[in-house]
Amino acid sequence: MNPIASMDDTIVALATPQGVGAIAVIRLSGKEAIAICNKVFRGKDLTKQESHTIHFGTIRDGEKIIDEVLVSLFIAPKSFTKEDVVEISTHGSPYIIKQVIQLFLREGARLARAGEFTKRAFMNGQFDLAQAEAVADLIHSDSEAAHSAAMNQMRGGFSAEIAALRDQLIYFASMVELELDFSEEDVEFADRTELQNLVNRLQTVIKKLIDSFDLGNVIKNGVPTVIAGKPNAGKSTLLNALLNEEKAIVSDVAGTTRDFIEDEIHLEGLSFRFIDTAGLRDTDDKVEAIGVERTREKMKQASVIIYLFDLVNESLEDINAEVKNLEAQSIPFIKVGNKIDEADAEKIASLKAQDGWLFISAGKKENLEELKDQLVSKVNLQEIKSGNTVVTNARHYESLIRTSEALDNVTTAIAAQISGDLMAMDIREALHYLGEISGTVTTDDLLETIFSKFCIGK
Amino acid sequence: MNPIASMDDTIVALATPQGVGAIAVIRLSGKEAIAICNKVFRGKDLTKQESHTIHFGTIRDGEKIIDEVLVSLFIAPKSFTKEDVVEISTHGSPYIIKQVIQLFLREGARLARAGEFTKRAFMNGQFDLAQAEAVADLIHSDSEAAHSAAMNQMRGGFSAEIAALRDQLIYFASMVELELDFSEEDVEFADRTELQNLVNRLQTVIKKLIDSFDLGNVIKNGVPTVIAGKPNAGKSTLLNALLNEEKAIVSDVAGTTRDFIEDEIHLEGLSFRFIDTAGLRDTDDKVEAIGVERTREKMKQASVIIYLFDLVNESLEDINAEVKNLEAQSIPFIKVGNKIDEADAEKIASLKAQDGWLFISAGKKENLEELKDQLVSKVNLQEIKSGNTVVTNARHYESLIRTSEALDNVTTAIAAQISGDLMAMDIREALHYLGEISGTVTTDDLLETIFSKFCIGK
Repeated sequence: MNPIASMDDTIVALATPQGVGAIAVIRLSGKEAIAICNKVFRGKDLTKQESHTIHFGTIRDGEKIIDEVLVSLFIAPKSFTKEDVVEISTHGSPYIIKQVIQLFLREGARLARAGEFTKRAFMNGQFDLAQAEAVADLIHSDSEAAHSAAMNQMRGGFSAEIAALRDQLIYFASMVELELDFSEEDVEFADRTELQNLVNRLQTVIKKLIDSFDLGNVIKNGVPTVIAGKPNAGKSTLLNALLNEEKAIVSDVAGTTRDFIEDEIHLEGLSFRFIDTAGLRDTDDKVEAIGVERTREKMKQASVIIYLFDLVNESLEDINAEVKNLEAQSIPFIKVGNKIDEADAEKIASLKAQDGWLFISAGKKENLEELKDQLVSKVNLQEIKSGNTVVTNARHYESLIRTSEALDNVTTAIAAQISGDLMAMDIREALHYLGEISGTVTTDDLLETIFSKFCIGK
Repeated sequence: MNPIASMDDTIVALATPQGVGAIAVIRLSGKEAIAICNKVFRGKDLTKQESHTIHFGTIRDGEKIIDEVLVSLFIAPKSFTKEDVVEISTHGSPYIIKQVIQLFLREGARLARAGEFTKRAFMNGQFDLAQAEAVADLIHSDSEAAHSAAMNQMRGGFSAEIAALRDQLIYFASMVELELDFSEEDVEFADRTELQNLVNRLQTVIKKLIDSFDLGNVIKNGVPTVIAGKPNAGKSTLLNALLNEEKAIVSDVAGTTRDFIEDEIHLEGLSFRFIDTAGLRDTDDKVEAIGVERTREKMKQASVIIYLFDLVNESLEDINAEVKNLEAQSIPFIKVGNKIDEADAEKIASLKAQDGWLFISAGKKENLEELKDQLVSKVNLQEIKSGNTVVTNARHYESLIRTSEALDNVTTAIAAQISGDLMAMDIREALHYLGEISGTVTTDDLLETIFSKFCIGK
């Protein structure tokens, strides 16, 4: 964020999405918010009204009426930014929105930068940095799991865990530093075994959080899923069958259609993102011939692989050899026999005798529900539903890794009976990285990086 | 509107545009609006709060928190619909919007139909039909002129004129009908000359309104503009030069970019819509060869024609002959000589000696401002800026035409000394058509037609 962007400025932006709608909300925040709005508002004197009240009137440019509006007042510190905030609800016309914002700019407000409202909320102590970041995650969450994780983080669940870790580390640090004060007397205030136990307990929690990022990443970005198999096994038919159903589902509440995301389906509150589907969609199944190398490459990126076997055109021997080959590579996959509607009954019976087979007809849309159940079972939903904190943010993940590394150094120091002052450095480093998560420790660069990713108006 | 759509229902819809934004507003209206919201809101008891107040809390589905929200209360009749209205300001996530609306549906609300909030406002006497229609016009207005016309209409300017006309007609009707009550006594309460004078005065006003529709249509839909000329005269170059400047202008306030409308430019608060530009854009100028017939056809649809002459490749004789030909067809056009940067000075001097020539270089973007000034001068801006009522709605235009026709019949009746009861029928017909404008006279079909064009949420 530009250093010229003073916190003393009163900022303005459109808070609702662009486009034509019944209403739009324009938001002002800062010391002059109410005064600026009052200058162009014809109705009650806004400077004399109470917080959390709504007032009808007109916004005027001189004598010209720009719109009839409702003005909502939030008086500091009882607002999102903890500053004076005015929200102007106008008719949802892009022309009107532009006129009103330009009027506010002329009256002394400036355009808000990306994320500046949320940044002010953070700077003024409304919430910590992890919570601020969760606001953006919440807005972009498009599955139940992503929504729950973001909501938990926004409401401080994650921050509380980090704060508890920090408190323990600070206690630890204080013991060691106390020792340093008395170093000439060679006193050990902190029993080394006790110290090591505390480090171990901290590491257990931190490593659990670090491990949760695998799941967190999947929650936030969807489960990378691959449909693989020999040419003509019916991969594109299956993909289309799954995606077309999804298309029908997403538009079930009129006026609230979620943007349909290509190549993504939602199951049990999780999104499954099909990767490398370009080939499947554009190519005629018959001419498609993905090399073994390419198939293996895309399988590596996948959390779940649907491996389709062509029950009509592949022989039992070929299928068994292929399965053996896949299992040898220890690739986790769902074994799916396709074209059961046309396949030889004996062949099916023979495969049924083996474990873990699922039989479908992609063309006839048979047993697709069972396939979806299997997809869901490949993800650790239990962990999501347990309400345990899940790290979904790559920045937090990095900071936790570094915290853990610093604590490893402490362990090494204890084992090597290294002097307290060196150990104290490692502990301070761990505290620093942990502090970056909640924003106890920040730099302008860090804040710039985080908030510039927000949309304007947030 | 489906007759099953009872006014007793509590309705819900997203009021802000779809898509991702900082916030979204969901609106409930009806008897149960506050009770339904209160069932899923955790915070203050909403049923005990005052109108025009805002309350922070959470929306919950059971124990699951869907979002932290601000709830605004408007208690009947102090609301847009004159019913109880609740507006819930949520985080602008399509996922959250959908969850909250589905929750309200489960709690007893139903999805609002297109325009249903505005329809209720009309039914409950918030404003008349012409004002209700202006709400939609206002939202879709994208130029200063369209905005002013819609704002004037929404605030009742047009309705007041119609109401005044109606009052006079009702006075007129009462005179004639009084006469009918005493018909056996052969009394003339209404002096025929006086009656005719009144009809004339009404017709003057009505015809002025009817005439204003030409301008109103241009205000609402843009000025249909054509760029014509021989192949290779530089038509596509000029179009691109004008449109590219427009593209740069529309995005001048970050975050409020008005949707760029292809083939439209804004000048002096009016939009000029270039018609039949497909040929100009896709075709190489050199191979383009629009037949005379086709050129004449598209010129007929235009309010303004920019006729480009190629000063380099057309001879003075050809140019003069072409101008003569165009003038003979009495087509109103702006005579524009293109390619002045390359043209022969003598040729230019010779044309300059004639009236009304404008010289430009589309390629070098020279004198385009003068061209724009000429475009603006072709439209009667005076009329727009005078604040006179302008009819912009085709439905109102139709009704005014029919009112006028009915009044013509009254004039005929007076001249033919036809008996009062027949004249009364014509007057009642005039009253009927005038009443359709303001909605004093309505049918379900009429309302259905009008409100179904609104967006959902309005």
